[in-house]
Amino acid sequence: MKKILLSHGGGGEETQKLIKNLFLKYFSNEILNKLEDASLLNLSGKVAFTTDAFTVSPIFFRGGDIGKLAVAGTVNDLSVMGARPKYLSVSFVIEEGLSFEELEEVVKSMAQEASKTGVQIVAGDTKVVPKGQADKLFISASGIGEVVYEGLSAHNLREGNVIIVSGSVGDHGACILAQREGMEFEVPVESDCKSLWNMIEKVLSSGAEVHAIRDATRGGLAGVLNEWAEQSKVTIEVEEEKIPVKEAVRGLCELLGFEPTHLANEGMAVFAVASQDAQKVLEILRSTPEGKEAQIIGKVVKKGEPKVILSTPYGVKRVMEPPAGELLPRIC
Amino acid sequence: MKKILLSHGGGGEETQKLIKNLFLKYFSNEILNKLEDASLLNLSGKVAFTTDAFTVSPIFFRGGDIGKLAVAGTVNDLSVMGARPKYLSVSFVIEEGLSFEELEEVVKSMAQEASKTGVQIVAGDTKVVPKGQADKLFISASGIGEVVYEGLSAHNLREGNVIIVSGSVGDHGACILAQREGMEFEVPVESDCKSLWNMIEKVLSSGAEVHAIRDATRGGLAGVLNEWAEQSKVTIEVEEEKIPVKEAVRGLCELLGFEPTHLANEGMAVFAVASQDAQKVLEILRSTPEGKEAQIIGKVVKKGEPKVILSTPYGVKRVMEPPAGELLPRIC
Repeated sequence: MKKILLSHGGGGEETQKLIKNLFLKYFSNEILNKLEDASLLNLSGKVAFTTDAFTVSPIFFRGGDIGKLAVAGTVNDLSVMGARPKYLSVSFVIEEGLSFEELEEVVKSMAQEASKTGVQIVAGDTKVVPKGQADKLFISASGIGEVVYEGLSAHNLREGNVIIVSGSVGDHGACILAQREGMEFEVPVESDCKSLWNMIEKVLSSGAEVHAIRDATRGGLAGVLNEWAEQSKVTIEVEEEKIPVKEAVRGLCELLGFEPTHLANEGMAVFAVASQDAQKVLEILRSTPEGKEAQIIGKVVKKGEPKVILSTPYGVKRVMEPPAGELLPRIC
Repeated sequence: MKKILLSHGGGGEETQKLIKNLFLKYFSNEILNKLEDASLLNLSGKVAFTTDAFTVSPIFFRGGDIGKLAVAGTVNDLSVMGARPKYLSVSFVIEEGLSFEELEEVVKSMAQEASKTGVQIVAGDTKVVPKGQADKLFISASGIGEVVYEGLSAHNLREGNVIIVSGSVGDHGACILAQREGMEFEVPVESDCKSLWNMIEKVLSSGAEVHAIRDATRGGLAGVLNEWAEQSKVTIEVEEEKIPVKEAVRGLCELLGFEPTHLANEGMAVFAVASQDAQKVLEILRSTPEGKEAQIIGKVVKKGEPKVILSTPYGVKRVMEPPAGELLPRIC
């Protein structure tokens, strides 16, 4: 089996071949094909810019791989700021000895995921490090989008805003966790890894008054809500029984001592919506393939006192703690 | 000594603390401080976009460190396309156990280098991987610049164009190589790692007719010239004795069997300039601190036959081969 060698990252002939035979084969577009030191883009108006490093292990998991994750994750970070994803850059740090086949699989899946949103990969870089100095493959991706809806911000939650999740909680984290623990057959959970722009665009173009959107990745739902409470200085109350959690995810969490709301999603977004538009947004979400399990889970109950309250059906209230500690390394 | 823990990359409270106490301390600006999923930028006109992964080992070297290198390298990739560097994103993959002090040193030096060009770091991400799954620290950086001079391209070399280098060849590669071989005292070479925007802006704003600029990084001068020959379909002829090489670099290369022209630079650019403006560009370069050792080294001798010829003082001509093989892993 062909393997990735140090020379593929040396900047010489082998690097040129790798670019031509692998990256251009799948990513080809007019801008990238020029192979300049920087790509020239035409952009107009306000622009959103984001970056993420991806170190997920294993690099292939049920429902995706590190490549799909890198593209979807970057697309989603732009989408939640109301920006139409336009251009991506990707850089690879590869461990010497990775099979060419595996790398090709990842690259192919990046191209596939990019095509779903129409985003173009216009810049890239590849470094190969000696065996043992990295673990298989790390990817960094940056994205540029054109802002089509302004005013979305973690600082923008208001009293009365309704909190909606676009899908069930913790799927990606549970999938990786099950795979690492060798429990993927007992816990048949797929990662929810996917691009959310098409779904988010439907909501934003409806004219609904949306105050904030965030995709719940590392830190999970609890991370998003606590950051929002902190940044907007509000108290958020969530009804525990309304939070959609898959049976298998709940079971795994009970077994291993995790909170589903602390586990990562990679294809689920949380919305804070003006109350009069909450029902409308819920229906739009449910009409999309990405948001068909959407659920209203709570609301912003008051200004001041930054915290998140979890209320149970029995009338008990407790604080939903922000995630802390080691959680799960290399979850994304 | 404080160390970086897995929890610093978990997306929970410790990650928030690292962001506030380290990254915002040094990178603080209005855009980054909002800590949204994507940063909102105002840009006008044509935009340049680039990305690079940095895996240099050791992470501290004579004349710089991986942080300075990441900023300068990204700034330079924009600069050589005629774009004023405006915004950077940076993502870190950190090996568990890296000392906080070392990370702070790197971050500080990134901020310092960014300030030299006035570029702002507006987006970032941090992942921590378990000990042994990465080597200390990898950084990916992407950059956005506003194009102020159009038409620079590796496809744009013309017969008669004069080739100018802004400094001596191979300094960065030789510095890293000497340090790895434990020869840094016998071979006192500093990396030339630096941002080139101020120098390049002076040349471009002079009105001189510049066809292409490229910073000679991995692959060195030989890499740049061979790619130019290939992409513009021209024959380039270089006078070997005109190529500036420091004594220590030449000595090290003879000892270890390297070609100075295959070794990386990280603060040297190659220019292809219309012949009537060559002298003017040379003088401008020499008037800048970054380009004071600039030298005319050759010219484009004819259209067709993509190759690079090296001519010696004795009238002998040979091909300047493109770099190939392993070269030096983790040189940048």
